[in-house]
This record gives sequence, structure tokens and C-alpha cells, in this order.
Amino acid sequence: MLEQNVRRQLIDIVGEAYFKDDNEALVTHSYDATPMVQAMPDAVIYPENKEQIALILKLANEHRIPIVGRGAGTNLCGGTVPVEGGIVLVMNRMNRLIEIDQDNLTATFQPGLNTKHFHMALEELGLFYPPDPSSMVISTLGGNIMECAGGLRGLKYGTTKDYVLALEAVLPSGEIIRTGGKLYKDVAGYDLTKLLVGSEGTLAIITEATVKLLPAPKYKQTMLAMYKDIHAAARTVSKIVGNRIIPATLEFLDNATLRVVAEFNKLDLPLDMEAILLIEQDGDDEASIRRDIEQIVDICRQEGAAQVQMARDAEEADKLMTARRSALSTLARIRPTTILEDATVPRSKIAEMVLAINEIARKYNVHICTFGHAGDGNLHPTCTTDARNHEEIERVEQAFAEIFEAAIELGGTITGEHGVGMVKAPYLEWKVGPVGIEIMKGIKQVFDPNNIMNPGKIFARETRKRVVVQK
Amino acid sequence: MLEQNVRRQLIDIVGEAYFKDDNEALVTHSYDATPMVQAMPDAVIYPENKEQIALILKLANEHRIPIVGRGAGTNLCGGTVPVEGGIVLVMNRMNRLIEIDQDNLTATFQPGLNTKHFHMALEELGLFYPPDPSSMVISTLGGNIMECAGGLRGLKYGTTKDYVLALEAVLPSGEIIRTGGKLYKDVAGYDLTKLLVGSEGTLAIITEATVKLLPAPKYKQTMLAMYKDIHAAARTVSKIVGNRIIPATLEFLDNATLRVVAEFNKLDLPLDMEAILLIEQDGDDEASIRRDIEQIVDICRQEGAAQVQMARDAEEADKLMTARRSALSTLARIRPTTILEDATVPRSKIAEMVLAINEIARKYNVHICTFGHAGDGNLHPTCTTDARNHEEIERVEQAFAEIFEAAIELGGTITGEHGVGMVKAPYLEWKVGPVGIEIMKGIKQVFDPNNIMNPGKIFARETRKRVVVQK
Repeated sequence: MLEQNVRRQLIDIVGEAYFKDDNEALVTHSYDATPMVQAMPDAVIYPENKEQIALILKLANEHRIPIVGRGAGTNLCGGTVPVEGGIVLVMNRMNRLIEIDQDNLTATFQPGLNTKHFHMALEELGLFYPPDPSSMVISTLGGNIMECAGGLRGLKYGTTKDYVLALEAVLPSGEIIRTGGKLYKDVAGYDLTKLLVGSEGTLAIITEATVKLLPAPKYKQTMLAMYKDIHAAARTVSKIVGNRIIPATLEFLDNATLRVVAEFNKLDLPLDMEAILLIEQDGDDEASIRRDIEQIVDICRQEGAAQVQMARDAEEADKLMTARRSALSTLARIRPTTILEDATVPRSKIAEMVLAINEIARKYNVHICTFGHAGDGNLHPTCTTDARNHEEIERVEQAFAEIFEAAIELGGTITGEHGVGMVKAPYLEWKVGPVGIEIMKGIKQVFDPNNIMNPGKIFARETRKRVVVQK
Repeated sequence: MLEQNVRRQLIDIVGEAYFKDDNEALVTHSYDATPMVQAMPDAVIYPENKEQIALILKLANEHRIPIVGRGAGTNLCGGTVPVEGGIVLVMNRMNRLIEIDQDNLTATFQPGLNTKHFHMALEELGLFYPPDPSSMVISTLGGNIMECAGGLRGLKYGTTKDYVLALEAVLPSGEIIRTGGKLYKDVAGYDLTKLLVGSEGTLAIITEATVKLLPAPKYKQTMLAMYKDIHAAARTVSKIVGNRIIPATLEFLDNATLRVVAEFNKLDLPLDMEAILLIEQDGDDEASIRRDIEQIVDICRQEGAAQVQMARDAEEADKLMTARRSALSTLARIRPTTILEDATVPRSKIAEMVLAINEIARKYNVHICTFGHAGDGNLHPTCTTDARNHEEIERVEQAFAEIFEAAIELGGTITGEHGVGMVKAPYLEWKVGPVGIEIMKGIKQVFDPNNIMNPGKIFARETRKRVVVQK
């Protein structure tokens, strides 16, 4: 609980209306989209500007009060759960789209801006900001930046870090720094911009960002390829890129995901397929997209696709992409608890990874279906379970530990786009090694010597023991 | 000078043949491509592998001996001048192209690999690694990574940091870390890969890198637009991108540069033009490139280009691009000393920046011509002078300080692609502020607590006083 005089000072900074510590506010901000993690904050504050944030952080730093920045709370790593209490800083009042600079092709905004609203504002001008996390209807750009959000277009267009050019951020000391600029080239010292992107609120609170924009591609074409053999689908993914075609989207859904997604979205798809690829190409030239798609169709057929199908029109294409994006919420209807993971491997290892996941699921007798961004190797093995069944949850956790281990063995990582947060902290050392952890802790210490910024995230009290994956 | 026992141990690590401290070796490694900076090392060592490097760094760390990593020494910021003595670690024995992975579209190599050789090896396979610093015939990829090299394709394709996916690096402690992977998506902790790119040898010695590749574009078209008015050229640059066309190359040469480049390369170009734009578009579709180029031609004419000219064939295009790349060496023939700078501004500010440069040159009565990567705002104001004329050099330095100041005033930076090194260290604080400097120093301390890694670079003993630019 906050000391009375600190509480008073915080209210003086933001005003009565924007400081809350009633039970409803605290409970509402005790969890995020991540299952099975919850902790109560001591206060919830809605700052209006960077000056207020600077005062809040300075005060919190003096009194060693944890600060947890929060956008829309859609993250899947427990990133905004106030696990050590303290203040949840909700950024939704700072949601202004400050500028779209059409000469420099940049946009500048405050962190609370909704991702989808931003996309729509750009669309009207024929502009394009590629990162499209599946949560984008709800998520904020500040949250996207803090977690380095990816999405369906990673293979061709990269992720959030490939677009952020400049940041304004408040340090725990209350000092404000500005990094980068409207510049594609800037090598003045270490790249603090890229260091802050994906730092999960553990270094600073960002108060403004400038991102790079692209001209919106004029045309797109969407297609489906369906397989009775997972291997054939995975080989297709490698072969498309091996043939020097980089599609805008190259999504994979296994049979279990296909079934629920098709049913929920009333899609007429054959349910006896083991795997399905959802492929989209975009560009400024219709003929060249058609050529790419024709070549992709040939590859799908050569690799043994049982069925290949074009989206008839933009509406059908949109329906398919929306269905894919709804995979998490659709799967969540099956059982009380849905754990969506994020193991990522080099693209060429997708078949091996999917098979490893299935084998591990069998071994622990848990239900895992897999979908994800096959083009960039970012898979989402998703377990539908029940948090109240402790014995089953124990098995689920063992299964996921083994899945992370398998991903690393294949040259991959424990998280492609969700972040480490609380839930993957015990596994971070598996990926980056003890020296990597020490360096990261050292960097954290430079920004945040009193460990008030989102404490308990990224770095675990205890690293999990590595399991040995059976070959 | 090294202590005898340290010298002995170093020889034991690499063998007699690869340890040199004769005068010739020391003098040869006392300077790089940067004018007017020189300092003698105590030894020059040519390691064969990371294990040797680990032993060397550990020993150097114990004895507080500076370590200066060096590729081909083509940098322009004094980055490889051993300003505090110590050991120059020449990486040219570690020049192996380890793998081109066509399924994952990645390449893995040792840092001493020549940039141009790498490009050629990829070309044979229809692959493409965009960063193309003008020094690429000589430079190494390790040097490119340490300085975050850019080049002529920054606007469309980004710079080195947009391609490096994974690094292996030796820390001053002798410990070896591996960052990233063959992964487009990886958010497991802070992004140490991007932090090391552009760290100018001040944090670690990299021993292996994996970069992302692209399919080589199948077609390209090159053109020239010539202007009697610099403003018109600059407006054209903004308008091309404002019209949603992103050319692969969009280079600017002023009259002074045009004259020497045309003469030296025997190009038949009108010498009465104030500015010239060299524009190239590439892609997989000829029709769409033609459309882009036609639209660019229209824009050039609308903005008052005096002459627009297509490259007749690939040979002529190549000749033009090679002429542009030779600008530095061509200008270097005019007077004994050539200082090529790297001030960068948002693309929309190019006209203002070029005019500011010309005004500053007049004010200090120095000869500065300007060329550069207009598409990404990265200009290279280049002064031809004589290092022996101290009075003139004083004026040159004042002029450049004012140019940096002007770039920052316009929302730009002191260095777009050359790095800070020694020569821009006194100005870094102008760009990143005192708090930015403190954070960067803190990060340096985490990796290199004894300050043995390329000491005297990035961080200046004394920051220059800011001048106030006359408006």
C-alpha cells in the first residue's frame, strides 16, 4: 500500500479523477490477457503528459514503488501484471496521433493510440504501417513497441522494431530522453531506440514515438492450400521462399485449429485436412502478383497439396484473414483456459517443430493445436486446458518447457513476438545463456538502478532446469 | 609498450608469424581512411579464431591493454586508429563465408570477409544483401557491422542493422556470447544484436554474423535528372517519395562534385548544372519499374529539371553508379586533404541543409562540395583542404561544427552512416544529450568495465561548445 503522503502527492500530480485505488480499479488492473497470472497493484494512474509521468517516476523512484506501464493489456506474457504491486500507469489518455508526415513518410504519436485506428488513418492516405499483431483491434501502439509486436506480415515486412525511428521516453530518474529522428540513417552512438523497443517497460516509459511508413501496396491476392500431410505443407513453405518468392503472409493452421476456426467463422473448408496454408501476396503490380501466386500454386501442387483455392474477391480474402486472426479467441471457447505460446524456429525447421510439438503433447497427454506465421517460423502452439485442474496444468507446463527446449535445439527462440514478461522469464537463460542474462541485467541497472520499472519481468528469480528433449 | 611477458604470451596464443611489433607493422596500423588522425599501436595481431581472440582479450583485460578491432580500415571516423595504443586486432584471417542458407535466406560469415566478394557470391545465386557502402570493394563485413554501414540503397532497403540477425562476439572478459538466430522474430530479452551493430568495437569483438538476404531484384533502370536550381532538385526528391514511389537509389551531386566526377570518369555531362539526381529503380517486374520511372520523369520535369536522361543499357547504368561511388576518391585528387562528412537530415530538409552548408562554407571561406544519399537525407559535405595549413584547418573545423549544428537544428544527426569514432565524439552530446551520453557510457561499462575496447571512441574527453547557427 502507498504511504499517505505519497498518495497525496500522486493525486496532486494527476488530479483526483485520474488517481484510483478503489477495489474495482485495482482488480481490473491486476491481470492482462495472459492466463493464470494476477497480482494487485496499489494504485492505478492515468497520466496526461510526459511532465506528469516524469514527476510520478521521480517520486516512485525515491520511494522504490514499482511502475507498470500499461496500454490495452492485450499482451500474452504477463507483461502488465503488477507482480510486485505498485502503480499501474495506464496510457490511454495519451492517445494522440500527432503527425503523419507525408514528405518524410513517418508518423508520430503518443503511446496510447489504438493500433487499428492508426492503420485506418494511414489507409485513408494510401499509407501502410505493417506490424499487425492479432490483438490490433484492441492493442495500443505503445504496448506494441514495448513488446516489439509482430503479426502476419513479419516475413516480408519485419516487425515493430523495423519501423520505430525515434522515441521520447521518461527514465525512472524523471529525466526525459529523445532517441533517433525522422532518419533512416543515424549512427550517433549506441542504438537506444532499438534497445527500448521490446524492453517490456523495464527500462523507461515511452511518451512519444515516430515510425517509418510505407506506401500502401495497391493490390493483393489471397489463397489457401490444403494438405493431408503436415510435412508437405511445411515443405511448401520452405520451397516458396527457396524459389525467391516472399509472400506478404504465409500462415499455417493445423487440423485442430482449422476445425474450430472453420466452425466458428462458418467457413466451408474440408475438415479432413491435416494442415492448411493461408497465403497472401501484395504489391503495386497486378501482373507480378498473379505471377507469384501462379508459381506458389505450382509449388503447392508439386508438394502434394490436396486442394488449392483462390479467394474470389477482397471480401472473401478479408473473411479468411479475419478468421485466422480470430484463432486465439476461437480456441478459447473450447475449454476454460487457453495458453497460447510463441516458440519460433528458422523457417526450414517448421515441419520438425510441429512434429515435436505433437509428440510432446501426446507424451504429456495435453491438448495442443498449432497455428502461426509459418513464413517467419513463428508458431503458436496453443493449449486448451483448465486452470482449476492443477494436475493437468502441471503437465501443460512440463509440455511447454519441453517445447521451448525443442525450439532452441532447432536454432529457434522461446518467444518470437509475445515477449518474455513473467511467463517466459524462467526460460530466458536457455536462449541467451548466463552471460547474456548478466549483460541484460547490467543494462537494466543502467536505466533503472532501483529496479522500479516493471520489476519481476524478463529476469526470473530462478531459471528452470533444462529438460532433455527425446529425439 | 607491452611488457615482455605479455608479449610472450600473445605470441604463444597466435604464433610468431601473426604477432607483429616491428615499426612497419605499427606505422601501417596507426591510421585508417580518416584524414588527420594517427596514433601508434604497441602490437598488431592477426587472430585465427574466436578461441585465440578470447585468450587475447582476457589477457588484455587483466593488463588493461587497449584492443582495437580492425577490418580493412576504410572507416571515415578514425574508428580504427589506436588512439590510446595497445593491440590492433586485424581480422583478415577470419574471412570465411561459412554458409549461404537458401531455405532460410540467410548467410553466415566471419567478420573479415570482403563486402564485394560477399555480394558477388550472392549474385551468382540470385540473392541480394543490400548494404553497399562506397568502400565495399575494400571494406570487410565485420567493419560494416561495427560501423552500421549504409550506402546508396538506404531509402528502400535500410542499412546494415536491418539485416544482421545473429552475432557471435567475444567480450573483454574472454566470454563468448551468441545473440539472435536465423529468426526474423525473436524478442527473448533486450536486443543485444542491434546494440552490437554500430557499437564501433567499443563493446566486444564479433567473430561470426548471420544476416538476412533478399531475392535479387530481376530488373533495374537508371536515370539522371539535371537542374540549374538546387531547390528544384531537392523538391524533386521530396515529391518522388511524397508520390509514394520508393526508388532503390536517389543520389544527389552538387555542381562541384559533378565537375570532378564527370571529368575523372570521362562522362559527357553538362557542367553548368547546379545539381544532378542519379535515380535507380529495381524490382521483379519490368512494367512496374517503367511506370515508376515514367512517373519520376514527370515529377522531375514538373519541378523544372533542365534535362532528363535514361541510362541506355546496364553498362551505362553501371558506369554512372561507379562514378558516383568514386566521388570521394575523385575529390581526393583536388587537394592534399579530403574531409568527407556525414550530416544527415529528414529527407524534406535536404534543400535547406544544402543551402546551409553552402552558406557556412562561404562564411569560413572553405571549399565544400556536397553529394550524398538524398533519398534518405544522408548528405556528404566534403571539404578539400590541406592538413599542413593549420589556419585553414581551423576554419574547416569551425565550418563542420556549424554544419553538425545545422543538421541537428533541422531534426537530423551528426552521422548517418560513418560512425562517431574519434572525429565526431566531441559532438555526440549535441545529438543525444547529456543523459543519452550517460546511458551509453553505462552500457559501455556493462560490457567493458576496464575500458579496453577501442578506448577514446564514441565518448569524448570534452564535448565541443555548441555554436549558434545564423539563420
